[in-house]
Amino acid sequence: MNKSEQRISLAVSTVIFALRPIPESGQSALWIPLVRRTREPFAGQWALPGGWVDNDESLADAAGRNLLETTALEPAYLEQLYAFGDVERSVSTRVVSIIYWALVRQEEAERATEGENVRWFAADNLPELAFDHNVIVDYALWRLRTKMEYSRIARAFLGETFTLSELRLVHEAVLQRELDPANFRRQIESSGSLVPTNHVVSGGRHRPPRLYRYDEGVELVDNGPLGHTKTGSTRVIN
Amino acid sequence: MNKSEQRISLAVSTVIFALRPIPESGQSALWIPLVRRTREPFAGQWALPGGWVDNDESLADAAGRNLLETTALEPAYLEQLYAFGDVERSVSTRVVSIIYWALVRQEEAERATEGENVRWFAADNLPELAFDHNVIVDYALWRLRTKMEYSRIARAFLGETFTLSELRLVHEAVLQRELDPANFRRQIESSGSLVPTNHVVSGGRHRPPRLYRYDEGVELVDNGPLGHTKTGSTRVIN
Repeated sequence: MNKSEQRISLAVSTVIFALRPIPESGQSALWIPLVRRTREPFAGQWALPGGWVDNDESLADAAGRNLLETTALEPAYLEQLYAFGDVERSVSTRVVSIIYWALVRQEEAERATEGENVRWFAADNLPELAFDHNVIVDYALWRLRTKMEYSRIARAFLGETFTLSELRLVHEAVLQRELDPANFRRQIESSGSLVPTNHVVSGGRHRPPRLYRYDEGVELVDNGPLGHTKTGSTRVIN
Repeated sequence: MNKSEQRISLAVSTVIFALRPIPESGQSALWIPLVRRTREPFAGQWALPGGWVDNDESLADAAGRNLLETTALEPAYLEQLYAFGDVERSVSTRVVSIIYWALVRQEEAERATEGENVRWFAADNLPELAFDHNVIVDYALWRLRTKMEYSRIARAFLGETFTLSELRLVHEAVLQRELDPANFRRQIESSGSLVPTNHVVSGGRHRPPRLYRYDEGVELVDNGPLGHTKTGSTRVIN
């Protein structure tokens, strides 16, 4: 094949995970923002935020721009997750989608104003999405739950310092199962990655819990020799 | 942007790692097959095996086909590594490359007949490659050395059963540093992933070393819910 005969379009989409309580139970769980499609194919169905790659922008920039334009979210870093390229994954035209993902804290998640066409959904309980986006979210959940170091997950969802209970609740929210507090404390302490600070939770409790921090600058996005794929966050949307 | 205005071509390339001895030292190390470019840009320079994605083939199929056509190599599985899409990474035209990788045993590696335009190179000592292929190989080496479970590396490079010395030599070849045999044995035994078999190495030695195997079917490619991205190995090259 000559490359001029190639008929493949290149798109980007993003999976943004935030921790939020499930209204019915009050339990914390993983949520993602979705965008309602306003045109065919799949008009009216929910999809991951995304769009086409411009000729003059990098893949990460394209992911950041499309995310910002559709949801007003602007995470500091997007990590590349996977390229989905099955021949039949779109309709009438061949589309290869490079998927990016990020974990964001509650403050950042609140920038995504919900409306008729943008809404947060519990990641484990999604409706039928456009294209193969259910498969993509399932893959992202699997990667998050099985492949990512806990230190990076906790660092993304918690502040600089936190109690062991807060850390355990983050783990429970990601895994969606209860963890034994004593076992959890032993595992974390033997991992050597946490450092107790000299501070405790303020507020006058009798035995206030101690605050911990991570031993070093654990980066959320570790691309090794590639460095950060920083998104074009200075770009202005008109 | 309308997608009809998109001017981006989609390519695939593969990084195939095999263990081979370095001629000067006899030490085992990681090698990769490269293909000499016969046309511009970068005519005459070495590059990763690869090519364009056909309109009707999946990304993994395209990677497998291009690898087979250029090197005669046909690994059972190719794992997706990363998509490289910087705007300036090619010349005159915008190319996004999805990179696949695999670890192959010596028997499989020998299918790649060397010639004027195909040659194996020590991965840590490459010439200046075409495009950004040095960056790609550096990233693959970093992922292999820091992110991949040892069980998967050893499973890919060793047979079904092996001695602890053979396993240590594989680790040393990947990491390019010596490991203390006693410490190595302790670490492996405490990991619980290895099972001693009832067999020893045959050949009449006084204390023949015991053969071990992995506890379960550790897959080289673990894509979780996506399953295997099996390459189209039944395809016939005319």
